Amino acid sequence: MTPERLKRINAMLDKRQPDLTVCMEGVHKSHNLAAVVRTADAVGVSDVHAIWKSDEMEVRGGSAAGSQNWIDVHNYTTTKAAIDELKKQGMQILVTNLSDSAVDFREIDYTKPTAIILGQEKFGASDVALAMADQDIVIPMVGMVQSLNVSVASSVVLYEAQRQRQIAGMYDTARIDDNRRQRFLFEGGHP
Amino acid sequence: MTPERLKRINAMLDKRQPDLTVCMEGVHKSHNLAAVVRTADAVGVSDVHAIWKSDEMEVRGGSAAGSQNWIDVHNYTTTKAAIDELKKQGMQILVTNLSDSAVDFREIDYTKPTAIILGQEKFGASDVALAMADQDIVIPMVGMVQSLNVSVASSVVLYEAQRQRQIAGMYDTARIDDNRRQRFLFEGGHP
Ligand SMILES: C[S@@+](CC[C@H](N)C(=O)[O-])C[C@H]1O[C@@H](n2cnc3c(N)ncnc32)[C@H](O)[C@@H]1O
Ligand SMILES: C[S@@+](CC[C@H](N)C(=O)[O-])C[C@H]1O[C@@H](n2cnc3c(N)ncnc32)[C@H](O)[C@@H]1O
Repeated sequence: MTPERLKRINAMLDKRQPDLTVCMEGVHKSHNLAAVVRTADAVGVSDVHAIWKSDEMEVRGGSAAGSQNWIDVHNYTTTKAAIDELKKQGMQILVTNLSDSAVDFREIDYTKPTAIILGQEKFGASDVALAMADQDIVIPMVGMVQSLNVSVASSVVLYEAQRQRQIAGMYDTARIDDNRRQRFLFEGGHP
Repeated sequence: MTPERLKRINAMLDKRQPDLTVCMEGVHKSHNLAAVVRTADAVGVSDVHAIWKSDEMEVRGGSAAGSQNWIDVHNYTTTKAAIDELKKQGMQILVTNLSDSAVDFREIDYTKPTAIILGQEKFGASDVALAMADQDIVIPMVGMVQSLNVSVASSVVLYEAQRQRQIAGMYDTARIDDNRRQRFLFEGGHP
């Protein structure tokens, strides 16, 4: 690894936010999946969680997500398993949901450990996700379309989290643990 | 047209922001084009501008954009023609651009009449766009990827504009002119 590349990877790792994550429920189109992971990386998310209801999609999703080597992707077969794990990690569980009872996404405190659940492109978030979540959140819309593209919705919420965390100084000191840094440096040196 | 539908269309028209627009430079993948137009609708944009460098894409793009009947799409064959028109309308011209000299997108005042130029997926914004624009703006990124998906970048900027315009009360009174309202009501009644 060149010194420049080592510096670049360490600078990225210094900004990682291990307590901000996205959890994709159900099967998404691969271009949506790629866009979600791409934005997650851009705001410093280190882990993405994905719930796959069929084996075939796990493979496809796995490879699409794997093209992004700098994010750890965690796969689940049920929503309950995924949210149980996120709760064990002490995350507040927010589910993006187009309902009248959802609160405006900007009212949330994203400096807390936070997992953002994204619903399936066609059917939205499952009843299990809605029941298990701490809060559902909505991005206001004033047009004729019923919903946003899922990668767009994810990005708008993630950039609100980035805004709040930047103000709170959460990008100013490294927050990733040393084991993980070593692993990424090792893998980044052997692509 | 049912009374409910009339009410729904009028409510949408009451929120339209004729002085906030997006201009797509070059050819984008149709799913990106669709996502840009979808978010534009959601924040109340009434007009989208598109520059097509080839006839084939104009047709494809036209139909993709046309699926969104509630936005007026304006097509151009050169960047200069598009930006000349936007300047004539008194818009500040912002070009989203991954450069060190670009300012953070949150520093901009989006309550002014504003056109946001989006670069082509592969090559970014053209030199002509950069030279003609009033300002280039960047969305901060702290990860390993070099850029965001174009529809994501567009949406993050549009939702910052929406945030500022909401605070400024720009969604509280109707701003669309009456001719256009009548046209949309007529077309909406005859799909
Ligand atoms: C295309 S939408 C799903 C639409 C589905 N028919 C429904 O009613 O939930 C796919 C996902 O994008 C997210 N999403 C889209 N628009 C949103 C908005 N305005 N607010 C919050 N989440 C949104 C949610 O995660 C949603 O489950
Ligand atoms: C995939 S990017 C283009 C990448 C191209 N290689 C370049 O260097 O410009 C496509 C478009 O998305 C927008 N974009 C993507 N990421 C952005 C960011 N972080 N800030 C501002 N605009 C961005 C710009 O309009 C850009 O032209």
